[in-house]
Amino acid sequence: MLSEFSLIDRYFARRATAPAPRHDDEAATPLGIGDDCALIAPPVGHQLAISTDMLVEGRHFFPDVDPHALGHKALAVNLSDLAAMGAKPHAFTLALALPRADEAWLEAFSNGLFALAERCDCALVGGDTTSGPLNICITVFGDVPHGAALRRDAAKPGDDIWVSGMLGDARAGLGAVRGEWRAPDETVAADWKRALERPEPRIALGLVLRGVAHAALDLSDGLAGDLMHILKRSGVRAVVDADAVPCTDAVRALPEPARRQCTLAGGDDYELCFTAPPSARDALADIAMRVKVPLARIGTIESTGTPAIAWRNAAGAPLSLTLQGFDHFHAD
Amino acid sequence: MLSEFSLIDRYFARRATAPAPRHDDEAATPLGIGDDCALIAPPVGHQLAISTDMLVEGRHFFPDVDPHALGHKALAVNLSDLAAMGAKPHAFTLALALPRADEAWLEAFSNGLFALAERCDCALVGGDTTSGPLNICITVFGDVPHGAALRRDAAKPGDDIWVSGMLGDARAGLGAVRGEWRAPDETVAADWKRALERPEPRIALGLVLRGVAHAALDLSDGLAGDLMHILKRSGVRAVVDADAVPCTDAVRALPEPARRQCTLAGGDDYELCFTAPPSARDALADIAMRVKVPLARIGTIESTGTPAIAWRNAAGAPLSLTLQGFDHFHAD
Repeated sequence: MLSEFSLIDRYFARRATAPAPRHDDEAATPLGIGDDCALIAPPVGHQLAISTDMLVEGRHFFPDVDPHALGHKALAVNLSDLAAMGAKPHAFTLALALPRADEAWLEAFSNGLFALAERCDCALVGGDTTSGPLNICITVFGDVPHGAALRRDAAKPGDDIWVSGMLGDARAGLGAVRGEWRAPDETVAADWKRALERPEPRIALGLVLRGVAHAALDLSDGLAGDLMHILKRSGVRAVVDADAVPCTDAVRALPEPARRQCTLAGGDDYELCFTAPPSARDALADIAMRVKVPLARIGTIESTGTPAIAWRNAAGAPLSLTLQGFDHFHAD
Repeated sequence: MLSEFSLIDRYFARRATAPAPRHDDEAATPLGIGDDCALIAPPVGHQLAISTDMLVEGRHFFPDVDPHALGHKALAVNLSDLAAMGAKPHAFTLALALPRADEAWLEAFSNGLFALAERCDCALVGGDTTSGPLNICITVFGDVPHGAALRRDAAKPGDDIWVSGMLGDARAGLGAVRGEWRAPDETVAADWKRALERPEPRIALGLVLRGVAHAALDLSDGLAGDLMHILKRSGVRAVVDADAVPCTDAVRALPEPARRQCTLAGGDDYELCFTAPPSARDALADIAMRVKVPLARIGTIESTGTPAIAWRNAAGAPLSLTLQGFDHFHAD
């Protein structure tokens, strides 16, 4: 068995680099893997946005998941938090508990991780490796100008509510694995699996929403529950047209209860949900074209008051929905 | 069972605060728990020192460990990395996998954690909670002026080698638990247990070593292995007087092989090991008085060359030692 230090060196440290210096006074001093601490600093006038997520086998992923996909997803879910703040990825740390030193697994996992990290200019700067039940804990660091972060507490009465992309494919994929329903064909099955295993963090969208959106977050636990976080922190109420929530044709073709569960409470979407004033509609149409991500207007922030979502259908009639939040694998 | 959100709120979020703003332009914008990301920034002219450590049950601690002590130690081992860089603690994130929501356990764990966090002015700013085999992953953030960090690659030929405190008590405590040897009395047994379970990060020492020490690190895996990290990164060789390595009378009274194992390869000491030029000896004597931590000079950085430690005894005779590094619980 490889020792802890050989493992770190072979699969991670050799591919890690000190983060690129971003201003002159930092040029001599950024420091990555190999010391007690990494050293980083945001550019002048910026803050560091920091998020941490822990992924546990059997809870956030199946034991037989493709390790390349797992490496991708472990970083993607963290980068999605940066996107939701309008922060630019800069660096990350990786703590890893492994039941055994399986070199094929480590090679695939690290390849999946670094493929996304390199594509997003996000440098591995430190970490920890230990033996133990499989557990992946990543902490990411991004840059955001002072005062420009997209926070959850900034929704205003009158704002439109928007979501990016299509919701529900990841939950549809999970349902297919569980045997709750079947994908209509192999193409859809592959799309659902990809949505579940390889979410794409909306980094470019988050960056251009700075100064346009008011409140924002990423959809990890399902629209219904996640939107409530914005409402609670902003002290506002919302009306949402459940039929306006965008989804693929295959999800739209599911029976209504399954469709509502996937699109409104599915979890693992990693799309952005944000609010913006109606005056921003033209700018948002432009943004959707520029970053090549569809944006759908699904509702309105109504007023200050006890946070709640009033659901409507396309005809404007009230909908009474029984939805359960996405409590990882086994509660919904 | 408490839901994930109730747990976070009751034991952690209510005691978390946005970190204190440290300069005017940050005053309006630091952000702690409750958004997608925390937002922090080091003071102008400073960098953030970042370290992450993952603790796994059965590997880093016994299943029956006092949860108050575990909360302390989980943060202490991370703060020790900041101390080793000469960084001032500022904030931390906590990711926690729990097999069940045991409220008594959570209350004791969080009390141990926050007692140390508050004493060190280190604010909880974010985290993640999930179910799963017990796993604690903390990432800490500290401030250090540009260029002032105590790095591992800065040892120079002619430097003295120093260690703080007494080495070996934690390993002696582990040996007592395992039945390798017995503590001579209950006072020593309690001292050993405290060393193993409640290490005290040398934060004040790390701060005053800025500008005095050359290279530094904290002793987590045992002096022999950890000092090699300094030698390798600095490209230098060392001579160390094994009998000069400071230890308590109870450890000194162990049979020689056990004593050497405890003091030189024991692990879990969380003392600082550093190098400094001989011209700093008077300053270091002053520092030891001021921060009330004994400092012992144990050897010399000899020359550049293939990194290696030449061990000597008090008479200056070469020692041939068979030491095994501290590979967590079960390899030494």
